[in-house]
Amino acid sequence: MTQAQKRAVVLLSGGLDSATALAIAKSKGYSCHVLSFDYGQRSLTELNAARQIAASLEVAEHRVLRLNLEDFGGSALTDKSIDVPEDAEDDGIPITYVPARNTVFLSLALGWAEVLHAEAIFIGVNAVDYSGYPDCRPEFIAAFEKMANLATKNGVSGEPIRIETPLIDLTKAEIIQAGMALGVDYSATLSCYQADDEGRACGHCDSCRLRAKGFEDAGVADPTRYVEA
Amino acid sequence: MTQAQKRAVVLLSGGLDSATALAIAKSKGYSCHVLSFDYGQRSLTELNAARQIAASLEVAEHRVLRLNLEDFGGSALTDKSIDVPEDAEDDGIPITYVPARNTVFLSLALGWAEVLHAEAIFIGVNAVDYSGYPDCRPEFIAAFEKMANLATKNGVSGEPIRIETPLIDLTKAEIIQAGMALGVDYSATLSCYQADDEGRACGHCDSCRLRAKGFEDAGVADPTRYVEA
Repeated sequence: MTQAQKRAVVLLSGGLDSATALAIAKSKGYSCHVLSFDYGQRSLTELNAARQIAASLEVAEHRVLRLNLEDFGGSALTDKSIDVPEDAEDDGIPITYVPARNTVFLSLALGWAEVLHAEAIFIGVNAVDYSGYPDCRPEFIAAFEKMANLATKNGVSGEPIRIETPLIDLTKAEIIQAGMALGVDYSATLSCYQADDEGRACGHCDSCRLRAKGFEDAGVADPTRYVEA
Repeated sequence: MTQAQKRAVVLLSGGLDSATALAIAKSKGYSCHVLSFDYGQRSLTELNAARQIAASLEVAEHRVLRLNLEDFGGSALTDKSIDVPEDAEDDGIPITYVPARNTVFLSLALGWAEVLHAEAIFIGVNAVDYSGYPDCRPEFIAAFEKMANLATKNGVSGEPIRIETPLIDLTKAEIIQAGMALGVDYSATLSCYQADDEGRACGHCDSCRLRAKGFEDAGVADPTRYVEA
């Protein structure tokens, strides 16, 4: 592997953050092996966004893994019997939290990374303009990285794997500015928790509000297509 | 939840170890929510064994989650282009190791545990008579537990989740003796890496050898059905 390009597995949801994390991974010289999940989320249009982003950034490969997380229930994003809230929620962990989602996604990325001899996994988590999910915090990422190196051949062979979180300390506006500088086409990204079948955002959910404010703060025209234009 | 029975998620492969771990969880008074995976392993008969064991131990519920780990390749257990070795391998991590398998399984168990408000996840890993997989070691389990409580609502709400490994320090013979005392029907379990379609074991692979020696050391007649009887 001495002459080969260094490899990274990059988690891509189709949203603004993960698209930016992918562009950053690519700008750092990684051959990017991109992983998305079809996990019963309301917005299958998110996966179409992921495919479009992966193609436009000319990644090494893009795989979509099917995961029946809706069987477990417990989240408004996967359980159709729970409504997505349209107003900001009180303190605490929101109902849109999917149980152990980043843990599950990172674990599957870890399995693939081990097979690929990848040296890093990129994930677009953010602990500034975020929804308060516990699995977006730096202390979670550090604990996952430690566990990952005990779980796999990497730790044994002395080739530790790193969990890279290039967005973790950025505001939404800073994320957008970083992505614009790297040529990310944000019109292809989809952040809404309840986009319609044509990929149009609701404009009201927590994710839409954070995104819209990010474009405003960055001084960038919002390219999002909304249901009520 | 004060009057309700305490809950556990129990990982069940259909093998000897996980069947014993399930019987132990039940004996400790847990309502057992059992999780198995259809992850492209060679032995789908393993899943039939899991269903039979779950039914005979009268668990609260049993779910089988489909996971396309074979897409990643890299293991003789999921990649049909790699032969399962029939002789003991040299030192090091064997080719039958599935990348990040226990990490992935525990992560999905964690998501379900969070929804169920379960207080424990049981996994039948063993660091004595085992195949040298890194994700069977006590230090891996401890790191996973720490990560899990940072990842989920549990850690935030002050209801930490425990990863229970009742077999970790037992020899295979001790595992069998513990299971016999709890009424486990080992004739229903399947440990072979390459069982035939009728659930008969090869008798030669690493898993078969460890199991046969366990029955011998325990002084228990081996109930395994072998291809060459």
